[in-house]
Amino acid sequence: MAEVFGGVEGGGSHSVALLISGDGRILSQTLGPCSNHWLVGAEKCIQVIHEMVQKAKTEAGLDPNMPLRSLGMSLSGGDQKEAIDKLIQYMKERFPSLSQHYLITTDAVGAIATASDKGGVVLISGTGSNCKLVNPGSSTVGCGGWGHMMGDEGSAYWISHLAVKTVFDAKDNLAPPPHDITHVWMAMKEYFGVSELMGMLPHLYTHFQKSFFAGFCKKLSEGALAGDELCKHLFLEAGKVLAKHVVAVLPAVAESLLTGPLGLPILCEGSVWRSWELLRPGFTEVLCEAAACEQFRGRFHGYSLLTLQHSSALGGASLGAQALGVSIRMDYLANAKVFYTHIFNSS
Amino acid sequence: MAEVFGGVEGGGSHSVALLISGDGRILSQTLGPCSNHWLVGAEKCIQVIHEMVQKAKTEAGLDPNMPLRSLGMSLSGGDQKEAIDKLIQYMKERFPSLSQHYLITTDAVGAIATASDKGGVVLISGTGSNCKLVNPGSSTVGCGGWGHMMGDEGSAYWISHLAVKTVFDAKDNLAPPPHDITHVWMAMKEYFGVSELMGMLPHLYTHFQKSFFAGFCKKLSEGALAGDELCKHLFLEAGKVLAKHVVAVLPAVAESLLTGPLGLPILCEGSVWRSWELLRPGFTEVLCEAAACEQFRGRFHGYSLLTLQHSSALGGASLGAQALGVSIRMDYLANAKVFYTHIFNSS
Repeated sequence: MAEVFGGVEGGGSHSVALLISGDGRILSQTLGPCSNHWLVGAEKCIQVIHEMVQKAKTEAGLDPNMPLRSLGMSLSGGDQKEAIDKLIQYMKERFPSLSQHYLITTDAVGAIATASDKGGVVLISGTGSNCKLVNPGSSTVGCGGWGHMMGDEGSAYWISHLAVKTVFDAKDNLAPPPHDITHVWMAMKEYFGVSELMGMLPHLYTHFQKSFFAGFCKKLSEGALAGDELCKHLFLEAGKVLAKHVVAVLPAVAESLLTGPLGLPILCEGSVWRSWELLRPGFTEVLCEAAACEQFRGRFHGYSLLTLQHSSALGGASLGAQALGVSIRMDYLANAKVFYTHIFNSS
Repeated sequence: MAEVFGGVEGGGSHSVALLISGDGRILSQTLGPCSNHWLVGAEKCIQVIHEMVQKAKTEAGLDPNMPLRSLGMSLSGGDQKEAIDKLIQYMKERFPSLSQHYLITTDAVGAIATASDKGGVVLISGTGSNCKLVNPGSSTVGCGGWGHMMGDEGSAYWISHLAVKTVFDAKDNLAPPPHDITHVWMAMKEYFGVSELMGMLPHLYTHFQKSFFAGFCKKLSEGALAGDELCKHLFLEAGKVLAKHVVAVLPAVAESLLTGPLGLPILCEGSVWRSWELLRPGFTEVLCEAAACEQFRGRFHGYSLLTLQHSSALGGASLGAQALGVSIRMDYLANAKVFYTHIFNSS
């Protein structure tokens, strides 16, 4: 099985492993729970990965005792060199028959490697948010990703929080709401099971759960689709601030990423992108402004938004093989679909 | 001892009990730890109060087994009727010789009762922030006080957070800082013991301690006094948003609180007020704007800032007696000092 390569996508909520042959055929794919080593610890992380990969070997009809040629892992929280070196060392010792070679990279780099071999921008808006520019050659520049205490701007958490804060400020008379709060306050009462502002305090402190708080965003998207102006406003603001993450990394974008016919490729990940039509007015406004400003004029011609059609475990597998000098055949056009393209007027 | 009245100030960091005679003489005063019942629980809360009061009786040369005429308690977290009724019932059962009568009110009402029998605005900026208008007759209207997850605007926590966020956003290129971040970033590195942004994450999540985070504000005030423009800017913004709390309750202020020669009395509590000279530009700007706007023109003539010279346990004692129809002599001019008065031009 010398020519079987493994890939892993390790996320905060679930994980994926897949096996691939040198000609790009996916041999098997398995699922597992959260494997973010910052959340579950190194021991649990490598156990989850081991189980998924061994199961994938069996499903592909391979001998689980024969090591893969390489295992490329695209892990959320995989960006501290010291920690990932330890993780690899630990895997080699604990599971000698898992794989001959290992590579760990971040979820952003793994995602881009699934969509392209030329780099791009990854813009995540799920429970939290994050933006990473991956230039050709895999060097990265980030913006955000510091968690809810330091922003998570444009994420489901942030949209939910902005909604709740708008209601608090309106009821306190501290700041006038941009639109009537009636619908959002009713939705808050229902979602959080409260009858007055005071009831929100357990949700914010003693029983705070980021994912539950962020889940309110889905109700807000429903409100926006039903025409509530405040809900629409929240997504407008989220679109703007997500675009600002892209503008933040623009100065560092390699020339080659800007000159393609589709403009800068922006890979969109996370559940909030399901509300693209709501994000669109704010998102396009900010990028249009950026394209027109002196710093980027003539350089930033347009952009395209893409979503992955496969797990970023595929990109992980590709990068793992690449580190050994093996080039796996990737069908990038099938791996990522463009769902929006904006080319600026050059006038 | 039928004519001895007790007062308690129950705070989030420390507590005070004092005994007072009908003619207003303070007979004794004792200290105790935190007695916020939301933080320490009802059992611990009433124990702390019992110990302080019994010690105060002994120090005043009174028999600890003889109940006080009344005990008026000014408690942080004392604004939920159901909870305070329970607390009083519990004290009566557990400590029958403590006092004949009980009254619990909020820290804001107790503070105002120490400074005046006519009401006023309490504006707290310590670790957190809060604003309460107490109208004559003790009815209150609040703004803020929802904790760090929902604002705490203008507090030491908020100023520290704004400083840290400004540095994150500048380094991420997400938002340009209003002034150079060099000094604040150096101060962050020293105070939090970090060398890069990543190092801040434990301080924001796993090891988050609001009081420690808020403690960074003192370093920022030192920076402002030394002339750093970003530090000065942070206090300018804090001054503005604290004043906005006052503007938020202005529409509900009783006419009688606005017509005195010193204008609206604003009782300032909390450590951030030590930096009044830094808050002043933003604070006065916002209140001048409010005075000039149509809604308040001709009605809001000026305001005075006061600080208490005695514990708000004194106001608690006074309110406790008042509930029995007993009026304790209070020297309001000695209990609270005016440190700033601003009368608007009537032109």
